[in-house]
Amino acid sequence: MKITALPLTAKQGKKKYYMCLYEGIRNAVLAGHMKRGDQLPSIRQAAKQLSLSRTTIESAYQRLCMEGLIIASAQRGYFVDVDEQQVQMRKAIIAANTPPQTKETYKDLRSSSMDATMFDDALWLHYLKDVLAQKQWIMSYGDPQGELRLRKALLQYSYAMRGVLCKEDQIVVGANFQSLLYLICSLYEGKRSVGMERGGFVQGEQVFRDCGFTIAYLDYDEQGITRRSLQEQPIGILYINTASCGTRKQALSAKRRDELLAYAREHEVLLLEDDHNGELRYQSRLHPAIQGFDMGKQVIYMRSFSKLLLPSVRMSFMVLNEKLHHTYQQRKQNYHPSSSKIEQLAFANYLSDGHMEKKIYRMRRRYEEKSTALMQLWKERLPKETIVLDESALQLLFYPKRDPDCYVRSAEAVDILIQRQRDASIALSFAAHTKEEIMAIMNELIDVWQKDQLV
Amino acid sequence: MKITALPLTAKQGKKKYYMCLYEGIRNAVLAGHMKRGDQLPSIRQAAKQLSLSRTTIESAYQRLCMEGLIIASAQRGYFVDVDEQQVQMRKAIIAANTPPQTKETYKDLRSSSMDATMFDDALWLHYLKDVLAQKQWIMSYGDPQGELRLRKALLQYSYAMRGVLCKEDQIVVGANFQSLLYLICSLYEGKRSVGMERGGFVQGEQVFRDCGFTIAYLDYDEQGITRRSLQEQPIGILYINTASCGTRKQALSAKRRDELLAYAREHEVLLLEDDHNGELRYQSRLHPAIQGFDMGKQVIYMRSFSKLLLPSVRMSFMVLNEKLHHTYQQRKQNYHPSSSKIEQLAFANYLSDGHMEKKIYRMRRRYEEKSTALMQLWKERLPKETIVLDESALQLLFYPKRDPDCYVRSAEAVDILIQRQRDASIALSFAAHTKEEIMAIMNELIDVWQKDQLV
Repeated sequence: MKITALPLTAKQGKKKYYMCLYEGIRNAVLAGHMKRGDQLPSIRQAAKQLSLSRTTIESAYQRLCMEGLIIASAQRGYFVDVDEQQVQMRKAIIAANTPPQTKETYKDLRSSSMDATMFDDALWLHYLKDVLAQKQWIMSYGDPQGELRLRKALLQYSYAMRGVLCKEDQIVVGANFQSLLYLICSLYEGKRSVGMERGGFVQGEQVFRDCGFTIAYLDYDEQGITRRSLQEQPIGILYINTASCGTRKQALSAKRRDELLAYAREHEVLLLEDDHNGELRYQSRLHPAIQGFDMGKQVIYMRSFSKLLLPSVRMSFMVLNEKLHHTYQQRKQNYHPSSSKIEQLAFANYLSDGHMEKKIYRMRRRYEEKSTALMQLWKERLPKETIVLDESALQLLFYPKRDPDCYVRSAEAVDILIQRQRDASIALSFAAHTKEEIMAIMNELIDVWQKDQLV
Repeated sequence: MKITALPLTAKQGKKKYYMCLYEGIRNAVLAGHMKRGDQLPSIRQAAKQLSLSRTTIESAYQRLCMEGLIIASAQRGYFVDVDEQQVQMRKAIIAANTPPQTKETYKDLRSSSMDATMFDDALWLHYLKDVLAQKQWIMSYGDPQGELRLRKALLQYSYAMRGVLCKEDQIVVGANFQSLLYLICSLYEGKRSVGMERGGFVQGEQVFRDCGFTIAYLDYDEQGITRRSLQEQPIGILYINTASCGTRKQALSAKRRDELLAYAREHEVLLLEDDHNGELRYQSRLHPAIQGFDMGKQVIYMRSFSKLLLPSVRMSFMVLNEKLHHTYQQRKQNYHPSSSKIEQLAFANYLSDGHMEKKIYRMRRRYEEKSTALMQLWKERLPKETIVLDESALQLLFYPKRDPDCYVRSAEAVDILIQRQRDASIALSFAAHTKEEIMAIMNELIDVWQKDQLV
């Protein structure tokens, strides 16, 4: 059928004529008044009929083409091109055009946030603004390895704060931990088996599995993975969260570190050091990273800054050892794990100006206060329950005597969100709340558990 | 040896005493005056000797511990702990603490930048500022699937501009294309072989290889991959850059699209549609995305916004088909490909306010002007050479008669940077320069090639 009269929606306010025509035709098509194969007037005809400019008609038709409602056929004209099947879907999409409501849960003790008072948004905005003013920086793609300015800043920071010894060329920046792990799996050529503590490293295990690795869960004691468990299972890569090892969730001891390094050298095992907030010690003694003791042989150092800078900025990096660095150099152009160049450059300047270091000192004081008060509360109210402070993860781990799910459900009844861990413990993060807030929530939690006779 | 006198560097300006002590000891250790095993005075002794507070001494010692220069041994005290081997490396790191110089190359025709006049940095900063003001947004980790607000905005944009038909739940946001491809490889369970045009998709091929796929390079004609070549090699996934197909680098035609869709259905092949700047048509006709013709069966729609928004902001997304979406829902918590939450939310609001759409219209006009002028120049000055306009990639492809490397070297002599492609063409990007600039550079390029008798 040839369409002769084109429908327009009402012209309101600043709405342009091409939008009125576009909407008119769209509505007619979606209501079934125009059907697949119907021919629209030519641009010239429509312009004459409606007393509108050709450009207006062309803009409306172009928009309908983009949306897939009509099709332009060379020499023949414009035709309605909507599948009956698609109409419902199209209507649903158009109707769904409302911004989502943000739902806030105040009493969330899952480890997904941090204390808002620890972040200086004006300062961060200042650094972003500085970078955006440098057009020659922001108009081009970034270095796939990470911005040189950031790698230099990371080198200095990691040396001063963690004793990491490397060159900036060994550093690779990634948007997230998984990107970096995929890169390691791609560069690594040895035995495709990874050893680790059984625990919460779900996203890492997924990467290893995707790349054809098997996962070996190794036994651990108070101090972490034991030498004996390593001898039982032959592995190619050993993954350790060096800031939170074993049942006591403490930093890797110097003795265990030397044992693991000796083992890694002897068996040519690649040691992945996940230094998760390693500098965030506030109850126990600081240990520098293992990487500094290895001289680039067996250790790859990895970490993110989510919990230290801002969870909403995703920034990770790693320090490759000599061997993987050599392979990386040869096929560097095959990878681009990096994140926003703007945030990289802002973070580089933030680091170089010493703000991260100052922030770490502030955080240590803050978290020392919080964790001391919380451990005290537990000791007083529930002296017979097992609770462990996982310092670098900014959480308490509670090992309940009964099924952890009962505790989670009981807490839900008073709107407290907590999470069961894979080792049957319950994580209680104190990162997101002020001391006063977290004390109140924790008291409420213990109250409800007592009421439900769980503790 | 027991150290009795501790060295301090000079106190200048605002430098704190703990830094003077830290630097003094660090310098002494790195100069070899203090050696491994030497014992430092206790905190109490040092405070008395130097008439400084205990906190000052403790801060200095703590910093030395973090850097790995001294070690704290329980009950025994503090000892120098520097390996002779590491000293050189430590000195090099400390000496390297200078910010890098940014080197700018003006005449860069490799496709790594965009025209600075196309970006409104004040507007983008406004959106970033808005997000940073929302503390409840930025203090928490993002949704691993991508922010709901962004997914809703992408749904509307992709529907209006590309005819994509989906629900927001099918959308997954990633920091970069590689993150999303790894995710697809992880979710996909069919035949591990990918078909594609032989060409510049190096980073994609790396991902497929890492995940155990073989790559089949398929024959193509003017319009892209041919039906016949598909029949010759059995594949599980078919990757197509639908905005730039075949030897003419044009959008996939409706006829070829229907052929490929029919083939994909018949053989249960997953079709990866890389809609690279698909809306950026300024010389040829617009085609909506294939995805809208498939009803979620065989097509996964993917794209990035680097060239449209800003190359330094890295933001990609994909629309999963029903099958992979189902698998994704079951193990969603295993993946987190996403990028900066701040940039995601800023981009969501930027999209919803219609800025991207307006920008596309501006870009179309700008690139139409540039490309028309450039094609005219080539036609006039070098009528016998082969040049193809690759619209969506914002570049000309020059197919030289002789070895491409000769042309690259010749250009280098006048500081023009160009790149040889894998199909032996030379890419000449016109994205980064204004019309006047690019015309001048192109004339200079043709001059030097004529002088070197290459054209």
